[in-house]
Amino acid sequence: MSDNSFGRLLRVTTWGESHGPAIGCVVDGCPPGLALSEADIQPWLDRRRPGTSRFVTQRREPDAVRILSGTYQGRTTGTPISLMIENVDARSKDYAAVAEAYRPGHADFTYEVKYGLRDPRGGGRASARETAARVAAGAVARAVLGQGITIRGCVRAIGGDEAGSCDWDETGRNPFWAPDAAAAQRWEALLDEARHARTSLGALVEVEALGVPAGWGAPVYGKLDAVLAGALMSINAVKAVEIGDGWAMATMRGHEAIDPIRPGPAFQSNHAGGILGGISTGQPIRARLAVKPTSSIPQPVATVTRAGEETEQVTTGRHDPCVGIRAVPVAEAMLALVLADAMLQQRAQCG
Amino acid sequence: MSDNSFGRLLRVTTWGESHGPAIGCVVDGCPPGLALSEADIQPWLDRRRPGTSRFVTQRREPDAVRILSGTYQGRTTGTPISLMIENVDARSKDYAAVAEAYRPGHADFTYEVKYGLRDPRGGGRASARETAARVAAGAVARAVLGQGITIRGCVRAIGGDEAGSCDWDETGRNPFWAPDAAAAQRWEALLDEARHARTSLGALVEVEALGVPAGWGAPVYGKLDAVLAGALMSINAVKAVEIGDGWAMATMRGHEAIDPIRPGPAFQSNHAGGILGGISTGQPIRARLAVKPTSSIPQPVATVTRAGEETEQVTTGRHDPCVGIRAVPVAEAMLALVLADAMLQQRAQCG
Amino acid sequence: MSDNSFGRLLRVTTWGESHGPAIGCVVDGCPPGLALSEADIQPWLDRRRPGTSRFVTQRREPDAVRILSGTYQGRTTGTPISLMIENVDARSKDYAAVAEAYRPGHADFTYEVKYGLRDPRGGGRASARETAARVAAGAVARAVLGQGITIRGCVRAIGGDEAGSCDWDETGRNPFWAPDAAAAQRWEALLDEARHARTSLGALVEVEALGVPAGWGAPVYGKLDAVLAGALMSINAVKAVEIGDGWAMATMRGHEAIDPIRPGPAFQSNHAGGILGGISTGQPIRARLAVKPTSSIPQPVATVTRAGEETEQVTTGRHDPCVGIRAVPVAEAMLALVLADAMLQQRAQCG
Amino acid sequence: MSDNSFGRLLRVTTWGESHGPAIGCVVDGCPPGLALSEADIQPWLDRRRPGTSRFVTQRREPDAVRILSGTYQGRTTGTPISLMIENVDARSKDYAAVAEAYRPGHADFTYEVKYGLRDPRGGGRASARETAARVAAGAVARAVLGQGITIRGCVRAIGGDEAGSCDWDETGRNPFWAPDAAAAQRWEALLDEARHARTSLGALVEVEALGVPAGWGAPVYGKLDAVLAGALMSINAVKAVEIGDGWAMATMRGHEAIDPIRPGPAFQSNHAGGILGGISTGQPIRARLAVKPTSSIPQPVATVTRAGEETEQVTTGRHDPCVGIRAVPVAEAMLALVLADAMLQQRAQCG
Repeated sequence: MSDNSFGRLLRVTTWGESHGPAIGCVVDGCPPGLALSEADIQPWLDRRRPGTSRFVTQRREPDAVRILSGTYQGRTTGTPISLMIENVDARSKDYAAVAEAYRPGHADFTYEVKYGLRDPRGGGRASARETAARVAAGAVARAVLGQGITIRGCVRAIGGDEAGSCDWDETGRNPFWAPDAAAAQRWEALLDEARHARTSLGALVEVEALGVPAGWGAPVYGKLDAVLAGALMSINAVKAVEIGDGWAMATMRGHEAIDPIRPGPAFQSNHAGGILGGISTGQPIRARLAVKPTSSIPQPVATVTRAGEETEQVTTGRHDPCVGIRAVPVAEAMLALVLADAMLQQRAQCG
Repeated sequence: MSDNSFGRLLRVTTWGESHGPAIGCVVDGCPPGLALSEADIQPWLDRRRPGTSRFVTQRREPDAVRILSGTYQGRTTGTPISLMIENVDARSKDYAAVAEAYRPGHADFTYEVKYGLRDPRGGGRASARETAARVAAGAVARAVLGQGITIRGCVRAIGGDEAGSCDWDETGRNPFWAPDAAAAQRWEALLDEARHARTSLGALVEVEALGVPAGWGAPVYGKLDAVLAGALMSINAVKAVEIGDGWAMATMRGHEAIDPIRPGPAFQSNHAGGILGGISTGQPIRARLAVKPTSSIPQPVATVTRAGEETEQVTTGRHDPCVGIRAVPVAEAMLALVLADAMLQQRAQCG
Repeated sequence: MSDNSFGRLLRVTTWGESHGPAIGCVVDGCPPGLALSEADIQPWLDRRRPGTSRFVTQRREPDAVRILSGTYQGRTTGTPISLMIENVDARSKDYAAVAEAYRPGHADFTYEVKYGLRDPRGGGRASARETAARVAAGAVARAVLGQGITIRGCVRAIGGDEAGSCDWDETGRNPFWAPDAAAAQRWEALLDEARHARTSLGALVEVEALGVPAGWGAPVYGKLDAVLAGALMSINAVKAVEIGDGWAMATMRGHEAIDPIRPGPAFQSNHAGGILGGISTGQPIRARLAVKPTSSIPQPVATVTRAGEETEQVTTGRHDPCVGIRAVPVAEAMLALVLADAMLQQRAQCG
Repeated sequence: MSDNSFGRLLRVTTWGESHGPAIGCVVDGCPPGLALSEADIQPWLDRRRPGTSRFVTQRREPDAVRILSGTYQGRTTGTPISLMIENVDARSKDYAAVAEAYRPGHADFTYEVKYGLRDPRGGGRASARETAARVAAGAVARAVLGQGITIRGCVRAIGGDEAGSCDWDETGRNPFWAPDAAAAQRWEALLDEARHARTSLGALVEVEALGVPAGWGAPVYGKLDAVLAGALMSINAVKAVEIGDGWAMATMRGHEAIDPIRPGPAFQSNHAGGILGGISTGQPIRARLAVKPTSSIPQPVATVTRAGEETEQVTTGRHDPCVGIRAVPVAEAMLALVLADAMLQQRAQCG
């Protein structure tokens, strides 16, 4: 996993800046013969698309994906799949101030120190817009995994307010991917209040995969949970990742944390989140991630100019009040990519 | 990051089973001309060594490291550094029962499903003994990083009981790497009680790096925090990782979570844990990990035999009542490896 | 080096089929701050462009490159550089017969056995059209290497007729990259004769790099010559590669093959082709490659249909009578990519 | 392929210097359940072992291999296989002069420029002794490939004197791996004459693989011939590589170079050397390599000291008069490694 490529056998390379002509990705290593057309990818992009409710950025992007290579007559050929999404609604004038001072909480300062220069338009490469390419690649990964594996995600909490129940059918009925209708209602009020207070909110996101057979993953550095943790932490604004009971494990006692095994074999609980020793157990694979509140807030924050002088910055562009919401389809995509790669690796080593 | 190798430019490959003749690693890509002898590596291994107090496994291993290649006249030559640690105190008879039934909470079941066979002696490759090789490699990484960078770790909590203060000098004075003498006393009692109750305890570990300049790391999938999250999650028994304020970020509001910048440039806080957009800010890099209680407990747990029949298993071997304690030097090593690799990558791309 | 990506630190991923909407590449790991615009890349593509003389394929492709990401205000930003070239003159009807029978000497059979299906239009991914993306990437590599390093190539022989002299200025004055005006005249007649005889001709291509400092490359599997050999052999139709005196070395005696060293240090000859132990010596780096005659010839050749029945195939599409000619800019590009990557690796490990 | 690791899925990392305590390798990614013990590896090492005839170096090394990890009860477990060979007969005093002046034709100068220092004992890492580790790894690769695939090699020519016939059974009956008894007799005289003349001889080596199914390999940069060319060129002293008819292809005409296909499908010739478009055709895979005469000759050659002053160097250590002979088992090992990796990759992508 390095820089702009992800995956070992199913390898995705993404490219593009927020306000460049386009963004995209190349998916290499895809098995041949899979049905794949734009219509298989577009629905996943639509779930992540900006401008779909007043709770996400108002940038209007159709996010229409084009397949430029790697398929023939609607099937993958085994050669690299190049996917491109044109940037349509890039209002670069919104970012004039950004060019002169570092937005605190963003990558402006670190990019400039690292590279000596940066593309300030919309955050350039550091923009969450890059995640559209991940979602497109994730659609390919879902095709690789096939119908037997279900990958899904939801928002478990916004601003510390947790969803009470977990009804997966509900996640598609509200603009928050909330698994609980009552929570969705509360979050609507919470987000309106936060916007009124000129601030933003953090979120807790959950993803899970059902139907993954036992035996995927690998020992040591290639542990399925290690790869997954890196994949999820690479999503913009994510600051923490846990697998299964994760954080709570630190306060549990051994006999509480073990998942006993009964004939089947069947595990009697899933504290482990479907992974033991870095290898899948056959139970649902479950991970959670903490997403920080967006640093783009419409109130002044102290910062410095490129010349090192004190100044303040107020975000005036179009931003998500809670980036955690749109992180859901992205986290699903990363989980799909990790699993599809693990599937191919398992096939390679163990036949 | 895949299977048994870690790192992109400073690349470590570890090998060895708990009860094989030896374990070791090969460190490739090390800059030439660095002073490196066994005496530079051994002290770090001694910190992780089993049998040093009654709170860790009583297996008696000197963990004496030998440099088999890659140095000449006490300096690295730029060629692969092969490090070997012989296994001395391997009592394989302790594991006879393990061969016939899967220890719940361990990788026995998943290894066998994946590979069709497994080395049951001491957990084989899944044993935490592998981490000795990581610590040895981490010593090389520290040599690469040089004196200007300090990497240190501590246990912040055992069984949910958090250290009150954070006195780094204190960490070396107690057998728990506790940064708080009072906590160390409480934990002693807590661990004795847990052993008496035939169970084990989880822990919260913290690592940090001081002196890392701004600009290390990379965007997107090579984010410093993404690589670090994968590295830490790859340590045995780790179930969650956070960077900076991590989990707490999910409940914070935007204006609370931002680190304002003042001339210097100097950040006024470090909620971000020293990383923005995947690149170091120049502040301390800080991560925490949740370590589950060891699954090796001296009370019967339900499981199945390889033939699929119901049985129970009681751990009788020598095990750590709290594996989180010995995770400290391992987590430090992984942080050192991630940073040394980032240093070389930064030098490659940005000169 | 694997599948569709090339390079370790300066990593190129190419994509695209001969008759798809476009071809292109993503160049990741490029140092920031380099001047780079379409005008820096286009001239190199123009050298490889089809249809420039009657001795190369008559397909009319402008091969106009677009930079889709990775630059800002005419400079590289350190993020992935996405380059795209639209396919304009794709006459897929020429390939109707190809879909039903395997062209001998081409990859039709092997692609179909491997993948179970193939894109028959223009050879799909196996088409030499892919090399346009390499040339575009090579232009980025030249920018990385800077003005101090000169990379150049020529055709040394066509159909066994060797160029007598080696005048590098002459290479740009004839349509064969011949370093010898007299040879160019002979080759013109030779190629006309071959076309008349409904066949094609093989060629011997040479590339060299001047100005490479001593110390680039690495031992063992990362040897500069090993990487270069793989890079050059990956070019379509290349069947042999030699470094320095190469093949002739097998018949030389030790005292004839050694390059003595004099103070400077200065080598008194360059049998080694500028590489010793896989590391550059500071002398010109020199390699030669044998390019087979194109298998697309306008006379019937025995083959089988996909159903396994006997048939014959006559090439009717537009093809190069000697693919070695257009291999020159491609081989130069691969040499540039190998060297730019070696430069970054050297900087990483040895500062 | 980079530095000291080779292969993508079956990945070998070698380590060790000529006069260090040991050399070895770690083979990661090996499929589980294969029968593997020292007895499966040793015979291949014995074929490469020094001191077996007066035509190879007189260094006396038993080259006894030890398996340190990755097997259990005589079967591979899927975890890294660590192999170690102790250096027994290292006479470092032979190399005192080498420390002060660069041996021409060797890597002394380039290593020192690159790294700023070098291990002069026996050539250090640049010594052909490293290839013992390759041969050990190659034995694992053979186990992966199984009985259905035969890999074999021979010396086709020494000092320009070519073997007349190709009788594979003969290769094991003479100390030159000559496939022709008459040639073996001539070479004996030739080598004695060369030694008398205080020089050394180059050689032409051939390797082939029988039984490889069609469909292994990959397009573009992962072409089977590209990977193989890099693998073979990485062997010490190799200066040229060809696949199939290789060099001769440059002088052939299209209709002569094509292998027509007949029902079966069956190719009517094998000019291509078993690879088309980078993918195996099902025919024998055939490659040849040119090995330069060893630069270690017992006559004075002009060179400079580390301080830059003129001097001469005469080799007095024990060396192979024709390193091409011992290159045979090494080239076989590299071919085995390339194919085993291709097999796993094919399984991964195409099931």
